[in-house]
Amino acid sequence: MRTALYPGTFDPVTNGHIDLIQRSAKLFDQLIVAVAINRRKQPLFTVEERLAMLEVVLPPLPNVRLDHFEGLLVDFAKKQGVDAVIRGIRAVSDYEFEFQMALMNRNLAPNLETVFMMPSQEYTYLSSSMVREVSSLGGDISTLVPSYVLAQLQTKFAEKKS
Amino acid sequence: MRTALYPGTFDPVTNGHIDLIQRSAKLFDQLIVAVAINRRKQPLFTVEERLAMLEVVLPPLPNVRLDHFEGLLVDFAKKQGVDAVIRGIRAVSDYEFEFQMALMNRNLAPNLETVFMMPSQEYTYLSSSMVREVSSLGGDISTLVPSYVLAQLQTKFAEKKS
Amino acid sequence: MRTALYPGTFDPVTNGHIDLIQRSAKLFDQLIVAVAINRRKQPLFTVEERLAMLEVVLPPLPNVRLDHFEGLLVDFAKKQGVDAVIRGIRAVSDYEFEFQMALMNRNLAPNLETVFMMPSQEYTYLSSSMVREVSSLGGDISTLVPSYVLAQLQTKFAEKKS
Amino acid sequence: MRTALYPGTFDPVTNGHIDLIQRSAKLFDQLIVAVAINRRKQPLFTVEERLAMLEVVLPPLPNVRLDHFEGLLVDFAKKQGVDAVIRGIRAVSDYEFEFQMALMNRNLAPNLETVFMMPSQEYTYLSSSMVREVSSLGGDISTLVPSYVLAQLQTKFAEKKS
Amino acid sequence: MRTALYPGTFDPVTNGHIDLIQRSAKLFDQLIVAVAINRRKQPLFTVEERLAMLEVVLPPLPNVRLDHFEGLLVDFAKKQGVDAVIRGIRAVSDYEFEFQMALMNRNLAPNLETVFMMPSQEYTYLSSSMVREVSSLGGDISTLVPSYVLAQLQTKFAEKKS
Amino acid sequence: MRTALYPGTFDPVTNGHIDLIQRSAKLFDQLIVAVAINRRKQPLFTVEERLAMLEVVLPPLPNVRLDHFEGLLVDFAKKQGVDAVIRGIRAVSDYEFEFQMALMNRNLAPNLETVFMMPSQEYTYLSSSMVREVSSLGGDISTLVPSYVLAQLQTKFAEKKS
Repeated sequence: MRTALYPGTFDPVTNGHIDLIQRSAKLFDQLIVAVAINRRKQPLFTVEERLAMLEVVLPPLPNVRLDHFEGLLVDFAKKQGVDAVIRGIRAVSDYEFEFQMALMNRNLAPNLETVFMMPSQEYTYLSSSMVREVSSLGGDISTLVPSYVLAQLQTKFAEKKS
Repeated sequence: MRTALYPGTFDPVTNGHIDLIQRSAKLFDQLIVAVAINRRKQPLFTVEERLAMLEVVLPPLPNVRLDHFEGLLVDFAKKQGVDAVIRGIRAVSDYEFEFQMALMNRNLAPNLETVFMMPSQEYTYLSSSMVREVSSLGGDISTLVPSYVLAQLQTKFAEKKS
Repeated sequence: MRTALYPGTFDPVTNGHIDLIQRSAKLFDQLIVAVAINRRKQPLFTVEERLAMLEVVLPPLPNVRLDHFEGLLVDFAKKQGVDAVIRGIRAVSDYEFEFQMALMNRNLAPNLETVFMMPSQEYTYLSSSMVREVSSLGGDISTLVPSYVLAQLQTKFAEKKS
Repeated sequence: MRTALYPGTFDPVTNGHIDLIQRSAKLFDQLIVAVAINRRKQPLFTVEERLAMLEVVLPPLPNVRLDHFEGLLVDFAKKQGVDAVIRGIRAVSDYEFEFQMALMNRNLAPNLETVFMMPSQEYTYLSSSMVREVSSLGGDISTLVPSYVLAQLQTKFAEKKS
Repeated sequence: MRTALYPGTFDPVTNGHIDLIQRSAKLFDQLIVAVAINRRKQPLFTVEERLAMLEVVLPPLPNVRLDHFEGLLVDFAKKQGVDAVIRGIRAVSDYEFEFQMALMNRNLAPNLETVFMMPSQEYTYLSSSMVREVSSLGGDISTLVPSYVLAQLQTKFAEKKS
Repeated sequence: MRTALYPGTFDPVTNGHIDLIQRSAKLFDQLIVAVAINRRKQPLFTVEERLAMLEVVLPPLPNVRLDHFEGLLVDFAKKQGVDAVIRGIRAVSDYEFEFQMALMNRNLAPNLETVFMMPSQEYTYLSSSMVREVSSLGGDISTLVPSYVLAQLQTKFAEKKS
């Protein structure tokens, strides 16, 4: 049995993430979608909120389970018996940074492969940070995130303003 | 009549910006040069100061007018009846980010085109942030910004030190 | 009145080219779509065939006219009173080469601007050479070129085999 | 059961290819390593020679089998029931071209995923064409290809000279 | 006599820096390794700590001396009679930024050349920031920094936690 | 004494090459400018013509000498006691290829450093192939090559036509 790990901040999950999760789930026996906790960054949504959104919006995929982790990715991957880490790549700058991370992770865990996959072309420009930015300014992002996430974003920004 | 919009932070305006404004003004009937206000960033100059500098240093071009906006670029563009957004490109990393922005803007406003133009080669490396950095350390930037902007920078950094 | 020039090999014209022609035609008073003749390259279609395909597949746009040229782009542009050359950009390697060309052209004709525009996202990966390659191997490219061009490609490759 | 396909020209196979085959074989139930035949290119080694070299130098991996194909990659992949195509990526230019190919292949076969993997860092600069070039000029490539391939290269270039 | 300058933050020095210092020292009569002080950034180690680490871990190279500077690189370089500034390049994004810096520095000091050199391939992915990040999370970086630096990092992060 | 090697095809030498030769000559005790002979490519000018043009157009630099070589760069470099190979870099695609070459050369000759230098900004877009292309089409390249090279190009293309 082969297990893949798709780590991310998912702040919030976008249609691009969902697309990549569906693609990855077809290639591996088990897929762990894990929210990374980084104490030095200030996310818009708490870990609990991010996991709850993933829970609601992911289609029912029997071999996908949600989790979260703090600390080194490779430590979490080892404990979970992960064979491959999935990373989505969209653009060149992405790729540069991803490559550097993947080489560092190979140094830390030589048996853990990093596998790069392409999201659907229509999500090429999509990132959680752009979704947050545009949403906070009142832009229409209804084609970029599930409707549940859209509602959560609107609630969050309404709270912030009040 | 076709209207183009050249948005930017202009903190401060450089010779590279002026070069691009002159090139753009030749291609469109009307050109709006608009200072973008971003409440999350700490500019060196206030919006008023940035607009005043543009006013002083721009050559007299009858079809160019100054403005400023807050919020989504596409909302401002729609209200002003803009046909094309002008973006200067200098390097690959620039281009990656610009491309992502342009695709997001096309999603938000399908009829608004983004048009990329090249500044003169001598300004390839020039950015407002580099101008601020070098100027704050006492470097000679007299070939990179108009003399009026140079004086404003020196005044600003003198204020900060005292 | 401002005139733009969209030069290319168009061997053959693809949906990506048509998309860019429609976008450009909205921004300029007149648009010249010109087939470039390069005696050192072996095109699949003759200049006449390429112009005929453009004639058939372009939507009726009153301010667009077809032409062809041999020799330096800037010489043709000067004779036609062109203000801006339109170039489509899709990817980083594209952009590098395009930038180099544009700087050379500015050296040869300082008043001629090069303007870069983005095709629709669904045509990001599309190029005439890939269309020729896939079509010659029997791949289905019916979503990438107009049906008339599809038929011309099939005829051409049938001739070659017999 | 999931099947992956690692296509290539393998003209000749290098240590970088072998490294990637071993990494891929761990992630999929079955791996097909397939020599692509391109009648328009002039390879140094015949298909038979390239397959023979792969046969000799690949370590015994029970779930890897060799094959070859002509025509469209996606047609071969469909016939073989392939779930994922493996591509090694080394550098940005690589990645640009690979991305374009992968998007075209997704257009032709929406259920076929392309998966990018990194060779070991020591093979970052390694390509078959560089191996051929350096070997033809008498350079020492004994750390870059298996000794059997080294001998075949020397024989081939000795034939060419005589 | 020709003098080169290798400036950096060295927060902390890594095996990649040491590799580049050894390579540079062979090409110039004198090499100044200089810690750059940037009052706007919060380094992990003080300037004194960074210089002390360099002192301990650098191999005895008679033509290398340590120094530090604040303000413009070109001002320091001029005072020291430097002919060339050495910059290590690892990846494309690096190179873009480095190129921009080098062009700005050439504008400020036309006679000062910037020279780009490659670290050993095994250090391609190595940066001080990644070393700090991984070390703070308890990752094993013993192959990436000298043992003395490793101990200093562990002490520093132990202090921070307590 | 340190010796650098600046290899190239120089088909023909451009103002960009001359700029880089002058910059390199200041940093090393001796600089060998060497015309590379590649029997598989069809140059416009013979080796003798290329060397003659270099001889005529290079300014008198006492520590620069001209040479030519065939075969592996590293073999020539070793025989000449070269410490560093100079490569000019202009753009990202350049850099990718140059990096790959430099890593291969380091594999073949570990003690030979590759040093990358920037030509003057005004020659960023300049390459011999573009000079040949534009010159063959009658474009004005008088600011890009010395007048002697300009005359040689005109003679060469006149011969070809007759």
